[in-house]
Order: sequence, then C-alpha cells, then structure tokens
Amino acid sequence: MLALGIDPGTAICGYGLVDMQGSHLKAVEYGAILTSPKMQPQDRLLKIHTELTDIIKKYKPDVMGVEQLFFNRNVTTAIPVGQARGIVLLTAAQNNIELVERTPLQIKQSVVGYGRASKEQIIYMVTKILHLPEPPKPDDVADALAVAICTTHCMNSLTWRNRL
Amino acid sequence: MLALGIDPGTAICGYGLVDMQGSHLKAVEYGAILTSPKMQPQDRLLKIHTELTDIIKKYKPDVMGVEQLFFNRNVTTAIPVGQARGIVLLTAAQNNIELVERTPLQIKQSVVGYGRASKEQIIYMVTKILHLPEPPKPDDVADALAVAICTTHCMNSLTWRNRL
Repeated sequence: MLALGIDPGTAICGYGLVDMQGSHLKAVEYGAILTSPKMQPQDRLLKIHTELTDIIKKYKPDVMGVEQLFFNRNVTTAIPVGQARGIVLLTAAQNNIELVERTPLQIKQSVVGYGRASKEQIIYMVTKILHLPEPPKPDDVADALAVAICTTHCMNSLTWRNRL
Repeated sequence: MLALGIDPGTAICGYGLVDMQGSHLKAVEYGAILTSPKMQPQDRLLKIHTELTDIIKKYKPDVMGVEQLFFNRNVTTAIPVGQARGIVLLTAAQNNIELVERTPLQIKQSVVGYGRASKEQIIYMVTKILHLPEPPKPDDVADALAVAICTTHCMNSLTWRNRL
C-alpha cells in the first residue's frame, strides 16, 4: 500500500511516498516542489498542481495524506497555506485518490509516540523508521514523510477494523 | 472587455461577469457555485474547479478579479477560504487569464467611492451601477460583482496609463 504524504506550502510543498509491505515501511521517493516568490501567486499554484499531478501519475499512490488544519496560529500564512492545501485536495479528487486528514497531534503520536513531540524528534524518528541515509531536508520533506507514515498506520488500522 | 469577479468560499463561491463597453457597465451573468457540507472537502473544491472552468469556457472573460487577502480576521475560516481561493487562482492560470487582485478597501473605493463602505452600501451601488432588477443574493454574489466592477475600472486605468 503506497501512501503519498504532503506538507502543503506555496514556497515549499514537501512530499513523501511511503510503501507499506506487511509491517515494513519503505520510502519510495521524497522531495519538495519549490516555487519562487518572483512568480505570480497563480503561477506558483499552477506549478504545484502540475508537479503534484506528475508525481501521482508516475507513482500511482493508493492513498494521500495531509495535515488537518482547523486554524493556523500564524494568521499571515493561513491564506497562502490554505491556497496550496486547496491545490493538494483538488489533485486528490481529480485523480480519485482516497484522502486521509490527520491532526498534527495524531501525526506526532503515530511517528514519535508522543503528541507534543518536537520537530527534531519527528525528523529523527522519520529518518530511523524509513532507514534513510540522512535526515531529509528541508523540514517540509520530513513533515510530508511523517504524514505518509501516519497515513499508512491509519489505513492499516482501518483495514484491521474492517476485518473484525 | 469582460471581467469575471469571484468571491471565493467553499460553501458559497460567488461569481459575476461584467462587460465594459466604453464607459457603460453591464452584468452579463452572475450567481454562486454552491457545495454541501455533507460533501468531502476535496469534492467541494473539485465542484468549484469544474463549474468555474465551465463558466470560463462559456464566457471567455478577458480578466479575472479576486479580493486580495493578506490575512483573515476570522482565523477559523482562513484555511477553507484560502483553499477555495487557491482553486480560483489555479483556474485563472490554467486558462491563461490575467488576474487582478485588489484589497477590500480598493474594491469599496471603486464601487461606493468610500473605502469603509458597509455591506448594504455595496449591494445598493452594485444594483444601481449594473441596473439590476433587484439586489443580487446571496451577499457573495454582490461581492463578486463588486470585484468585477473594480476589475474593469482597474483595467481601464491601466489601458489609459499605457496610452500616455
């Protein structure tokens, strides 16, 4: 089961593909879609949409995961983050891929085992769980991989629940 | 010159097409794209994207206008508004339509002549300027028409400036 985790942002949109084979997790691909502040806002969103669609067409994930945001503590970034997040959700719907939304607390709980884990702890555990040669950079990529790990756990527990 | 003004929202996405012939403004079409809260968030965004694309293909506007939001006073709605706004911006870029972003103050100034105008004053002036048989409803449609009016004014002044 292949999960595509996304950490939406206009400047940096992190993505991570995690494959679950039994109880084994493997990072298939990860990186970030970057857009320049010199570009028009609509062209930045178009670039995110195009590259994300390409990733989906290439890897054909079974499920997509994204952080659930009820509000953004930083009000100045809430609109651009919301815009990029809208593109991610649209791309999931356009490609008919199941979407899993989990709160930051659930994601940290799933990856570190502690809902109030620090950024450093998440990066450390993502690197360890996926046996990465080095910590993924920038942080947005580690966050996207954390979302992908949480998404595989979530899908796994749903599968189990359905079997009972 | 045909301008498509949008008031982005996930539940109600208002739109208004205003044609400028010389100094005369005419409402060509206006309404709202509605999505149910019973739908998945990604399906609501897909509906907005599909219907907005249909409107663009049908009317072929020369320019699109949308309110510029640096932050949203209501933090709980900033993410969903940002998501819908992201879809609007993407649709403009996908259809290669020029996008004009103006602040709420500029829009009110353009329609009412006063940057701190009330919602009632905007609805009254939109109805009057476009010779509508009755005030457009819901308010999101009046807002979208106000954005379209402001966009025609903006394009007109840009044209004049280029001629000097």
